[in-house]
Amino acid sequence: MPRIRAWAARTPRAPLERYDFAPGPLATEDVEIAVEYCGICHSDLSMLDNEWGMTQYPLVPGHEVIGRVVAIGEDVKGMKVGQRVGVGWNAGSCTQCRSCLSGDQHLCGQVQPTIVGRHGGFADRLRVNWLWAVPMPAALDASSAGPLMCGGLTVFYPLLSANLSPMSRVGVVGIGGLGHMALQFLNAWGCEIVAFTSSAAKREEALALGAHRVVSSTDSAAMQALNGSLDLILYTVNVSLDWEALMATLAPKGRLHLVGAVLEPIPVQAMQLISYEQSISGSPTGPRHAMDAMLDFAARHNIAPRVEHFPMSEVNAALRHLREGKPHYRILLDADFG
Amino acid sequence: MPRIRAWAARTPRAPLERYDFAPGPLATEDVEIAVEYCGICHSDLSMLDNEWGMTQYPLVPGHEVIGRVVAIGEDVKGMKVGQRVGVGWNAGSCTQCRSCLSGDQHLCGQVQPTIVGRHGGFADRLRVNWLWAVPMPAALDASSAGPLMCGGLTVFYPLLSANLSPMSRVGVVGIGGLGHMALQFLNAWGCEIVAFTSSAAKREEALALGAHRVVSSTDSAAMQALNGSLDLILYTVNVSLDWEALMATLAPKGRLHLVGAVLEPIPVQAMQLISYEQSISGSPTGPRHAMDAMLDFAARHNIAPRVEHFPMSEVNAALRHLREGKPHYRILLDADFG
Repeated sequence: MPRIRAWAARTPRAPLERYDFAPGPLATEDVEIAVEYCGICHSDLSMLDNEWGMTQYPLVPGHEVIGRVVAIGEDVKGMKVGQRVGVGWNAGSCTQCRSCLSGDQHLCGQVQPTIVGRHGGFADRLRVNWLWAVPMPAALDASSAGPLMCGGLTVFYPLLSANLSPMSRVGVVGIGGLGHMALQFLNAWGCEIVAFTSSAAKREEALALGAHRVVSSTDSAAMQALNGSLDLILYTVNVSLDWEALMATLAPKGRLHLVGAVLEPIPVQAMQLISYEQSISGSPTGPRHAMDAMLDFAARHNIAPRVEHFPMSEVNAALRHLREGKPHYRILLDADFG
Repeated sequence: MPRIRAWAARTPRAPLERYDFAPGPLATEDVEIAVEYCGICHSDLSMLDNEWGMTQYPLVPGHEVIGRVVAIGEDVKGMKVGQRVGVGWNAGSCTQCRSCLSGDQHLCGQVQPTIVGRHGGFADRLRVNWLWAVPMPAALDASSAGPLMCGGLTVFYPLLSANLSPMSRVGVVGIGGLGHMALQFLNAWGCEIVAFTSSAAKREEALALGAHRVVSSTDSAAMQALNGSLDLILYTVNVSLDWEALMATLAPKGRLHLVGAVLEPIPVQAMQLISYEQSISGSPTGPRHAMDAMLDFAARHNIAPRVEHFPMSEVNAALRHLREGKPHYRILLDADFG
């Protein structure tokens, strides 16, 4: 096997450098994928900066991969060389625990994230367990699909797992990398959608992406006008808002669902949850069946992330762009190892 | 109509005194009930002490009533004079809001609690809207059923509304007025049950009531041994435990459900909810259909609150007994107006 050519950081926050490594023999249940495109997700930055204390260097980031299968281990199921697949946050799971056996592979206690203790998609090739190489529907535009694999799944899975009704009134907090996909999914899902953003500049875009109303979360009168109305709030940012004002917008039986990794504790009022039969929940990415469902739904409804392309060789400029909060809305690296 | 004879407090924490009042004409949708038994619930104490700032004095407490219908308004549906009924926390609802129309009458924005702005069951008679007078199954022991109407419903409704599986592993925090009924319901529901109590004295009783294991919430080794195992925790007390240690005992997709009115904010870690797809929820009592279901289930499974009887004329001694935390497990007042 030829060496894999990649981009890696050797220390926290260091610029990425070209880094080649020998992948060894292909594991019997793994596929090898020639990377065409790889998205950059906020969690790539968190891993690069070792924010979660679990980064191993050199780190090859990248977990929103679109590419073609180029090699197949002997125990791989249902994959063909040449087939186009996508890979997201996870690259392996144990297959035998309660979560795996229940179809919740993303909650496996041994789940192997694509870039934790292994090398990711800022590379010419990537290997993952066959279960986590998800066949791409032909109708989906491969050149923009990368961010669906992690960010898209993260906001789609809560709709699927809750068996959300199209009669639901849903708020989306944060119209960025995650939120702009959430608006598209929710609109196609048939829901009534309120976008929360403190950026006046995003107002028109939020409406174009599928929101029916846009409310500034810092406008207390506008927030109060929503009181008691929302069945679900998808919280896609990692900073704290005024939790009390936000919870007040929930209807009876409403739920605040967190996909943004807020780091400080959220002060929850038991009496609020009890009086109105409400809840606060969270979820990480999603299981394999949800990835298939999400790609199928995106293909049927022409849902696509809004992306800016950079050649992979300009990965450091792309990362700077993301650190500066400028992407509109997600960045895709085009593999250019030649 | 004769005056209603009752026991009332005239100021916060004052002893109850005999208090008679003229109920006026019977409203067209109300029934009048001759009280046989009335439970004392912790929320009667909260209302007596004006803890929630909504008490109107004189206050006639009492919202766990068993009695017989003695008069029927002209628009009442499905009730007969002489019929035995139970009444709980709520006595009226608007019938036309989204919650009422959805069968969630307990979440009605205009819901009328039995003892908020109106007089309750420490009396010879009580009036409520017909919807909230729940027919008692003949198979249920009327002399102990009172506490089912509020406390029982409070711990039963979370099982019903979640469509809980008998395969669920459930923890019950607090083996008191609510918890001792939760253990019985959960055992009959077919679940695997862990009782959390810091009282060694309650160990054997918890097992007799239906728990399969008893764990002291202050024993950190025993708590850690439960890590990742519980699908649902019913939190029935109003004091804070070590939230982090408790949340750690939840399985992937597990849920902490609050029915105890903890007053200080609960510090929730977003990453815990996200990583394990968990949630925190709450609920108050329950809707009418759940009251019927709960009474039917209790009758089928011989579930009964453990009660201590006091004559209603000794209500002040009974309240003192409750304030001292001595009931074993609920108090019932037997109406003795003669």
